[in-house]
Amino acid sequence: MTSPSHPVVLGQNQYGKAENRVVKITRDGGTHHIKDLNVSVALSGDLSDLHLTGSNAHCLPTDTTKNTVFAFAKEYGIESAEQFGIHLARHFVTSQEPIHRARIRIEEYAWERIAGSDANSRFIGADEVNHSFVRKGQETRVTQITYDGEKWEVVSGLKDLVVMNSTHSEFWGYIKDKYTTLQEAYDRILATTVSGRWRFNWTDDEQRMPNWERSYEQTRKHMLEAFAETYSYSLQQTLYQMATRIITHRAEIDEVRFSLPNKHHFLVDLEPFGLKNENEVYYAADRMYGLIEATVLRDGATAQIPVDMTNL
Amino acid sequence: MTSPSHPVVLGQNQYGKAENRVVKITRDGGTHHIKDLNVSVALSGDLSDLHLTGSNAHCLPTDTTKNTVFAFAKEYGIESAEQFGIHLARHFVTSQEPIHRARIRIEEYAWERIAGSDANSRFIGADEVNHSFVRKGQETRVTQITYDGEKWEVVSGLKDLVVMNSTHSEFWGYIKDKYTTLQEAYDRILATTVSGRWRFNWTDDEQRMPNWERSYEQTRKHMLEAFAETYSYSLQQTLYQMATRIITHRAEIDEVRFSLPNKHHFLVDLEPFGLKNENEVYYAADRMYGLIEATVLRDGATAQIPVDMTNL
Amino acid sequence: MTSPSHPVVLGQNQYGKAENRVVKITRDGGTHHIKDLNVSVALSGDLSDLHLTGSNAHCLPTDTTKNTVFAFAKEYGIESAEQFGIHLARHFVTSQEPIHRARIRIEEYAWERIAGSDANSRFIGADEVNHSFVRKGQETRVTQITYDGEKWEVVSGLKDLVVMNSTHSEFWGYIKDKYTTLQEAYDRILATTVSGRWRFNWTDDEQRMPNWERSYEQTRKHMLEAFAETYSYSLQQTLYQMATRIITHRAEIDEVRFSLPNKHHFLVDLEPFGLKNENEVYYAADRMYGLIEATVLRDGATAQIPVDMTNL
Amino acid sequence: MTSPSHPVVLGQNQYGKAENRVVKITRDGGTHHIKDLNVSVALSGDLSDLHLTGSNAHCLPTDTTKNTVFAFAKEYGIESAEQFGIHLARHFVTSQEPIHRARIRIEEYAWERIAGSDANSRFIGADEVNHSFVRKGQETRVTQITYDGEKWEVVSGLKDLVVMNSTHSEFWGYIKDKYTTLQEAYDRILATTVSGRWRFNWTDDEQRMPNWERSYEQTRKHMLEAFAETYSYSLQQTLYQMATRIITHRAEIDEVRFSLPNKHHFLVDLEPFGLKNENEVYYAADRMYGLIEATVLRDGATAQIPVDMTNL
Repeated sequence: MTSPSHPVVLGQNQYGKAENRVVKITRDGGTHHIKDLNVSVALSGDLSDLHLTGSNAHCLPTDTTKNTVFAFAKEYGIESAEQFGIHLARHFVTSQEPIHRARIRIEEYAWERIAGSDANSRFIGADEVNHSFVRKGQETRVTQITYDGEKWEVVSGLKDLVVMNSTHSEFWGYIKDKYTTLQEAYDRILATTVSGRWRFNWTDDEQRMPNWERSYEQTRKHMLEAFAETYSYSLQQTLYQMATRIITHRAEIDEVRFSLPNKHHFLVDLEPFGLKNENEVYYAADRMYGLIEATVLRDGATAQIPVDMTNL
Repeated sequence: MTSPSHPVVLGQNQYGKAENRVVKITRDGGTHHIKDLNVSVALSGDLSDLHLTGSNAHCLPTDTTKNTVFAFAKEYGIESAEQFGIHLARHFVTSQEPIHRARIRIEEYAWERIAGSDANSRFIGADEVNHSFVRKGQETRVTQITYDGEKWEVVSGLKDLVVMNSTHSEFWGYIKDKYTTLQEAYDRILATTVSGRWRFNWTDDEQRMPNWERSYEQTRKHMLEAFAETYSYSLQQTLYQMATRIITHRAEIDEVRFSLPNKHHFLVDLEPFGLKNENEVYYAADRMYGLIEATVLRDGATAQIPVDMTNL
Repeated sequence: MTSPSHPVVLGQNQYGKAENRVVKITRDGGTHHIKDLNVSVALSGDLSDLHLTGSNAHCLPTDTTKNTVFAFAKEYGIESAEQFGIHLARHFVTSQEPIHRARIRIEEYAWERIAGSDANSRFIGADEVNHSFVRKGQETRVTQITYDGEKWEVVSGLKDLVVMNSTHSEFWGYIKDKYTTLQEAYDRILATTVSGRWRFNWTDDEQRMPNWERSYEQTRKHMLEAFAETYSYSLQQTLYQMATRIITHRAEIDEVRFSLPNKHHFLVDLEPFGLKNENEVYYAADRMYGLIEATVLRDGATAQIPVDMTNL
Repeated sequence: MTSPSHPVVLGQNQYGKAENRVVKITRDGGTHHIKDLNVSVALSGDLSDLHLTGSNAHCLPTDTTKNTVFAFAKEYGIESAEQFGIHLARHFVTSQEPIHRARIRIEEYAWERIAGSDANSRFIGADEVNHSFVRKGQETRVTQITYDGEKWEVVSGLKDLVVMNSTHSEFWGYIKDKYTTLQEAYDRILATTVSGRWRFNWTDDEQRMPNWERSYEQTRKHMLEAFAETYSYSLQQTLYQMATRIITHRAEIDEVRFSLPNKHHFLVDLEPFGLKNENEVYYAADRMYGLIEATVLRDGATAQIPVDMTNL
């Protein structure tokens, strides 16, 4: 891909339509079900001419990749984000000769029925209102499917899940140098916005796929339990417990990476006003924030989740 | 406030510290309770010199208004956002002679216990984990308290609550002019991000204050029920039903205003691909969007919620 | 608009298509000119049936208002955002009997030619590259046109313009109460993100319209000069000078409102590290922030810009 | 880092204080100069105990890394973002035994003097107003410095720079499959928001450092010229020209990666209104968008910029 007139070389490249917002309504009698996805397609392959000569002969337009997303929602349905991404990735790699690799990224937004959202109300709906929904709003579920014609890589996860322990967190015994002014803390708030990704060890056998929906629910549950139950001496320690809990409980997962901003809650000094703040009143700061990131692997596994992927 | 050398006049003005992020932890034995607020203070009064002469003799610094917010979280606690705002507004107006009016705006973020967030898991917590929370993430609750030394005005509400009816929505019979191309719709998705404000008729009697927490829960419930149960011929009609339901069920509320963007879900044309889209596959659009806004009043009440307040 | 079965009354209401992103390219030989607008339409009138009965007979669809925006960009061109808004507002009110009032809000994004953006480079463009642009990115220009069939109201302005004086700002001599801890400052940074709106006294005579483009440029210039030249004892004083300078220099403007967040730059305490910070190193804070808002009027004028309009 | 009780292994990990907003004012007589940075620190090293045992003996607190950023702004000044990052990275790796690698990421916000911002105005300032600034607002400049005690890696770039060619762009001759509906285009708008990163071949000799400020200015200039001058048959082709122009003109740069969203401007169909749209009126779409990404290397260089780094 270099020539006398081009002392430069084309490296990794990919393209496709990003952020296709597809909503699928499935009607089960009068009861409707929603899948609400944001699908991004990235294709790689024999694309040198496209960059160097202006020939588009090997280019499947991004507009076509968008059409394919919407058509597949009809043709295959959306059983899970992961399954939907697998259909799409296989299609692009196997149907177009110049395309050698497809990466499908999906965000999923959860909805719950309005009737179910308000626990202490009378039952609001008759049969005719089981098609009314409120967006759950908590975390955004994500997945990334990569296929090169031989092997599959599936990395799922979540982002924007905000959690807090209002006690059972300490931080002391650290290095002190000439720039250290921090006071040691023996009872502090620990809060973070979880961004996590977990890689499945499934690579190709379509008969032995994980149950993607159940896997997500259980992984999220173990992660939250570990966050809640860990008496923490650092956010690093909590992170490690969250990841370890997932790997030890979920055999389908070999690698976990978290990016955890330390959402600082500073105890407000009320003494100037003659008041004593007994771990009651905090100021929630925006920036700066500690940022703690780590990968945890099943013993023997090889790390594949990129360092920055949890920050996207 | 005008003079020969100043052929200009100072009009409405206000100042204060905005977006004070105060988090209050209340400990009930080992069980913790959170109130998580974003409090903005705006003060008005005898402030001409501040603008015209550079004298700050009548200026209570915004930094002091910030300190007051944090100190009051300790001194009064935070029973509800409304009650907390009332304490603050009264303080500023009654303690400082130049301050004649205080407006307190508060956003509230809801949290739920981690143990309760995952319905089909084993009970995760023993006594020691009842201080672990996940941010609910759905809507942001808001309130605005205004006090001028005599009368109180309390306007509460919510924003960023996303709802959808996947059927029971039509739109037809409208005006057609030379710029009309829209096809009539007999079964469409109706989705919106609710921003609503409701004004209480309580103005001064502290013995007969509404139960602010219960009022919010019930108002939200009636609003959602009306959204779900209305067979809709326009988003205007749905808005009117939502507001009417609140006023007829909640005696403490005299005025409701909604701003409802019509979050368009367009049926994707799958015919070019030989597929028939039977109200299944939609494209969720960002912009442009219809924007429907209206005030609904109890008969005899006077409108006081400003037109743009629901867009903040 | 009330009835026995409806003890509620419909109040102020409006609707239309928001955020129509229209880009107009005008070709002057090989030289292209861009107008890049975000246009929002809000219509009011005889719309009770729309809300109460589900009849859309008086409803001009928001989709049609969108089509009209794009068609008018062709039919009338876009001479200025203000002139374009006037064409649209007049059309909706005069062409549709149920529509009694139109409010057009426009944001405008400025572009500059790539050749001109890089002062110390060789001249990059021959004739063929005078159609290449970079978005200017500084402030967003805004305008709002309101027409009720008789009178016009034009309010223009800008938002998101970030300015700083690195000295010539003091703050002292303020009220001290029991919650005051702020130290007086005799040399501080004064920085803000300007959001301003100015109302024109033009109301109906189309032969005597202001030159909207020149008015904007000059108003912005006077505002920035006043910011730079004012030795400030408070942000209120600076705001007042900015507004006064506009009114005294621009005869077409009768009212100005600013909303100025005080973007705090805190001097960092470097003494623990044996360093002296002589007004050199600052920490730029996000939240909390002081928020200073005021209207300034030409003597004799009546205030019409709503309190919250500068926060949209 | 694994043990019988831990069948898991700790992988790549890093931590530090993110988004330290440091503003440095340098006084040159009455003339002030601003450097306005957002600095993020990430440290790696011998940190297993921190994750596994809760011991913080090897942990330099993130708070200390924040203090160091502010202290270094005083001790070393901020000559350029790159030079400042080099000071910081060297300090953390050489001063703390457990820290083996430091990565400093910096965003820089440009300011210009108010006097200079308004070309056709009278000269607004006397000597006393050369400390008044307006934030330039166009792109955000970025850099990343990585140091492991032996080698340096410097990757700089920019993000959020919006550019447009209003002609000289075509797209045709692409693959058509059963999901293709796109019409070929022979004169279209090409617009994108540039996110680019370029890696310097400088790795250790401090006597032969690039002039970072001049390198940035020239790289930006060549990139924009290539964007403007390329008659484009695809955004990929334009991207390749932009990167090639940088590598052929700037000897200090060996690798360039761009992420270029195709900001679609769709020609509006005005025929239903009896109007002919001769490439004049466009609708600027938000989502979906094509996303074009590629690395271009100097012949013989090895790719090191991660695939996702241009999306941060």
